[in-house]
Amino acid sequence: MEKAIQLLKDYVSHASVSNNPDAAEGMAGARDFIANRLESIGFSIEIMDTPRHPVVVGRYGYDKPGSEHWPHVVLYGHYDVQPPEPHELWTHPAFDADVRDNRIYGRGAADNKGPVIVYTCALENLFNQYPDMPLKIIYLLEGEEEIGSPNFSLVLERLKDELSEADFVLLSDTGGPDDQQLVITTQLRGLADLEVKVIGPSTDLHSGLYGGAVYNPLQALTEICSSLHNPDGTINVPGFYDDVVPAADWEREELGIRPMTEEELKHFTGAPELFSVPGFSPVEAIRFQPTLEFNGIGGGYQGPGPKTIIPSEAFVKITCRLVPDMDPFKIQELVKDAIESRVPASVKVEVTLGETGYPYLVVPPARPNTPEDQSSHLAKAFQLVDRAVEAHFGKRPLYLREGGSIPIIADIKQATGKDTILLGLYTPDDRAHAPDESFHLGIMEKAIPAMEDIFKGLAGIA
Amino acid sequence: MEKAIQLLKDYVSHASVSNNPDAAEGMAGARDFIANRLESIGFSIEIMDTPRHPVVVGRYGYDKPGSEHWPHVVLYGHYDVQPPEPHELWTHPAFDADVRDNRIYGRGAADNKGPVIVYTCALENLFNQYPDMPLKIIYLLEGEEEIGSPNFSLVLERLKDELSEADFVLLSDTGGPDDQQLVITTQLRGLADLEVKVIGPSTDLHSGLYGGAVYNPLQALTEICSSLHNPDGTINVPGFYDDVVPAADWEREELGIRPMTEEELKHFTGAPELFSVPGFSPVEAIRFQPTLEFNGIGGGYQGPGPKTIIPSEAFVKITCRLVPDMDPFKIQELVKDAIESRVPASVKVEVTLGETGYPYLVVPPARPNTPEDQSSHLAKAFQLVDRAVEAHFGKRPLYLREGGSIPIIADIKQATGKDTILLGLYTPDDRAHAPDESFHLGIMEKAIPAMEDIFKGLAGIA
Repeated sequence: MEKAIQLLKDYVSHASVSNNPDAAEGMAGARDFIANRLESIGFSIEIMDTPRHPVVVGRYGYDKPGSEHWPHVVLYGHYDVQPPEPHELWTHPAFDADVRDNRIYGRGAADNKGPVIVYTCALENLFNQYPDMPLKIIYLLEGEEEIGSPNFSLVLERLKDELSEADFVLLSDTGGPDDQQLVITTQLRGLADLEVKVIGPSTDLHSGLYGGAVYNPLQALTEICSSLHNPDGTINVPGFYDDVVPAADWEREELGIRPMTEEELKHFTGAPELFSVPGFSPVEAIRFQPTLEFNGIGGGYQGPGPKTIIPSEAFVKITCRLVPDMDPFKIQELVKDAIESRVPASVKVEVTLGETGYPYLVVPPARPNTPEDQSSHLAKAFQLVDRAVEAHFGKRPLYLREGGSIPIIADIKQATGKDTILLGLYTPDDRAHAPDESFHLGIMEKAIPAMEDIFKGLAGIA
Repeated sequence: MEKAIQLLKDYVSHASVSNNPDAAEGMAGARDFIANRLESIGFSIEIMDTPRHPVVVGRYGYDKPGSEHWPHVVLYGHYDVQPPEPHELWTHPAFDADVRDNRIYGRGAADNKGPVIVYTCALENLFNQYPDMPLKIIYLLEGEEEIGSPNFSLVLERLKDELSEADFVLLSDTGGPDDQQLVITTQLRGLADLEVKVIGPSTDLHSGLYGGAVYNPLQALTEICSSLHNPDGTINVPGFYDDVVPAADWEREELGIRPMTEEELKHFTGAPELFSVPGFSPVEAIRFQPTLEFNGIGGGYQGPGPKTIIPSEAFVKITCRLVPDMDPFKIQELVKDAIESRVPASVKVEVTLGETGYPYLVVPPARPNTPEDQSSHLAKAFQLVDRAVEAHFGKRPLYLREGGSIPIIADIKQATGKDTILLGLYTPDDRAHAPDESFHLGIMEKAIPAMEDIFKGLAGIA
């Protein structure tokens, strides 16, 4: 543990803020650090350039005789971090990792540097113990995760053949409710992004001289927006729900085992009251239902006091979170069609289709709706993870659909056909993306031997 | 005319931008200029301090024996101007007045320095010709008109007794359709200003982690906003129309004499199509109907690209334009009540009541709905103005309700009981408030003798 903590402190010290062009030194430092770390434990290293931040590719076991028949696992992590601002809200400087209260504090300590140190420590222990361990590993460490992985599809394209020969992907970049109960994330929601602009008069008009004779674009916009939900909160876009895969009974039951209470959810959100669509509790709706959210709206005068104008135009930003098997491109078209059919003749509308991400769903073995071959490497890996977590954390992991999105997981599936096991090592108290981010040392301490068990099991070492 | 043009050029050269604290020298220069100008033709001058920009008060005829029985007129103008920006859109520097194409160009050349020069030139000619002219005049020249006259009520309070003894108010700070057809504005719409804030979660939320469990404040806001109009465009606030005074037939007919066509209105606004409530053409609706306009809306992420948040809060700025006899305070309460009754429990709403202005209506004599005593000084003045305009411009003025607001006119009526004759000398081509503002020299040339006739008539000089 002492070594693991020191490694994580060193890794955190490199301010690898991928969205900040001034942080090139921190990006290079973190990249070199993790490349050296992998090389020092036995990986061969390739630095794969992209238009922005290179990917570190580590390979292990590839050159050994007979390795073409070995189990082959893809590991993924990212060496970039969120911006640390606002600095004044940090108890201790963001890039000078500080150990206190059984946690290690610093930007990236949890997301995603902590889990990567866990993985490398587990592998180092194993490689020392079993120098000829029959396991092929390709470890991808991305530098653009926090800016939406804009170039990861390039990397997938280049590595497509190699990754297609692997058995599955394993990574830790998700979380669970607390340090006692780990979660394996079985679903990530997809995303469909649109921007709507409503255009009325050619310039802002004096509302005294013209008010009454033109349709106010803000009025049109709010009417369009308000038409997109029904009074019960469901989405009023024809065809929107057509491809939704209903949650299985066991998935609802799983949610009940360590329920996030509505009180907790209310506390986390600070909302006056929670709200969910009929047939789903708020906790369920986040996981089992799609959404259509307005992320930003703007138009006209935004300064202090009044300004008596009829604005020339207004916009709204919309993103839909999608559950399997919704298709983001189809959803963009459905929402666009609904909006365009609801525009009054006295204004114009422009709908711009933005980013997309497919939803992802993997069903662990021995579940009523599992499509997995129980003898596959993936099924075996799920069982190994389950057993290792129970052995070291005292409880089996929960298998939960989650509401968030990691679009690259569906991209990997689409490009290579490979599924991913998402073993979460974060907790809400980690405050990922916020000031005073930290990683729980208790989780770190248990996760290293758990990962050793998993890799040993994959390699077929008893 | 040469002298009038030179005076206006000098007056324009003082950059009296009332909203700009750095323009103190220009404000003082314009104030001194117009105070000296009034003094030079026979007015006694008082500079009345306010918390911001002083008011120039000129008095004439007060000290003459028997003047307490003379006709007593209040003139009003303002020496401040709109900001000139953007400077690069001016053909010639904004404060270096330039004569071309039968116009004098410069910031404030029309609004309101041109008409004030017209009045002072007419008075100068008369005072020279009739040194003992039996007419009492108080001329108020405000320095805060372009910033909403925040201190004019103070001035009214101080001058209440004196103004209450006057017969009526006369000013030129409105316009007509072109240089051939003058308009007397009989209505100014009032104003009721509100700002609405909808508050949901305590901070912006990750739409993946929480989307589905909370009511999006933007969704609530657009639903509230969209509820405030009916599908036909009328305002869906109980009681909103209760106090509206219908337009008289002659008022609709007057609008038809020099109609602004829908084509013209479409051209001016640049709207894809015009829109008005049932029973009123767009040209009529601006004048005879109240509005509820959204002037600005904002909430959530406004930058480029998507950001997958559920915003914590959102706002909308609303102003209602009111026609007689709507009460702005009553309207604020009705709109507030309607909004508060339509808020879902899962968000909170805060409605802030802002500025108010009463609508104003004056009916000229010899009209079916005139309440004026035909022998009053006001009725006599209306007739004098009518005759003078016809004599010098070739056509009688039109008597039109307008859609804009000059709240001080209703304030004067409330404080002193006095009505105002608004003789418009602007045209749309003056581009008031815009770059390349100008004043039409043809109007100036005819308006000076027309004003002489009016003042002569008021003084009873044949």
